[in-house]
Amino acid sequence: MLIQLVKTLPNVFSIGNFICGVLSITINMSGFPEASAIFIFLAAFFDLFDGRIARKLKADSALGIHLDSLADIVSFGVAPALLFHSFAPVSLLTSFAFILFPTMGVVRLARFSAHPTRGYFIGVPIPAAGLILAFMGLFSYSSSFITIILAVLMVAPIKVKKL
Amino acid sequence: MLIQLVKTLPNVFSIGNFICGVLSITINMSGFPEASAIFIFLAAFFDLFDGRIARKLKADSALGIHLDSLADIVSFGVAPALLFHSFAPVSLLTSFAFILFPTMGVVRLARFSAHPTRGYFIGVPIPAAGLILAFMGLFSYSSSFITIILAVLMVAPIKVKKL
Repeated sequence: MLIQLVKTLPNVFSIGNFICGVLSITINMSGFPEASAIFIFLAAFFDLFDGRIARKLKADSALGIHLDSLADIVSFGVAPALLFHSFAPVSLLTSFAFILFPTMGVVRLARFSAHPTRGYFIGVPIPAAGLILAFMGLFSYSSSFITIILAVLMVAPIKVKKL
Repeated sequence: MLIQLVKTLPNVFSIGNFICGVLSITINMSGFPEASAIFIFLAAFFDLFDGRIARKLKADSALGIHLDSLADIVSFGVAPALLFHSFAPVSLLTSFAFILFPTMGVVRLARFSAHPTRGYFIGVPIPAAGLILAFMGLFSYSSSFITIILAVLMVAPIKVKKL
């Protein structure tokens, strides 16, 4: 019973990541984009631990892997893109960057789930890209150029070592 | 070459579903919740066809299944919850319903991806639940009670026939 309870701990962390992503979007909608950035950092805190705890507890599960990926698209794909959108001036380039970022994020996550790699990633992981946008948002800064570069790096055929 | 191009068609539909979900959230953020509901319906149009086209073209792929699931959490989990949030009066019950809906949605999607069923679903599918909230939003209507019931139905151990 206790062991089963402990084994659900990584999933609780993934759900924590997801809820922080949803709250980040809501707070941004309510007109507090800087606070919304902080929730993306909080999501990353949960995300950092779910995989580690799962491996430590030997509780890696198919359910856990899917939960992690579904939380990531909201917290590090959609929420950071909306944060960028809140600060960026209205232009065609802004709209392009705003759509490209989460779309490349979703392609990256689906690819990784379909063909997982061990010890390394192909392309920059979505939490890293999302955190850079969140960090920029914390200082009310936006750049379509950086957002597009990050979007492309997520699906670029480059090997990135797992931390 | 042409066959390969045709086989990516279902994935293009899933990405269409995802982009409609992102646009629904953005339009809601810009103060047009009714228009945001329409984008959830558009997402459902894309969602209806991706699986069918994939089966017809015999182009079902692991990538496609993951793309579909990642699009669904945004378009039928997060976007409808935010739509509900736009119309609902501020209260503890509203906040509870607002968080519960996408959270049960993410659990449902992760469960289905981890243990897929054929010909039937366990629990109400997330597009159905999301579309009910979108339909309510179209008439500027919200109900915490209905939102909580839908959230619970998504993870309830009931068999639902696939359409």
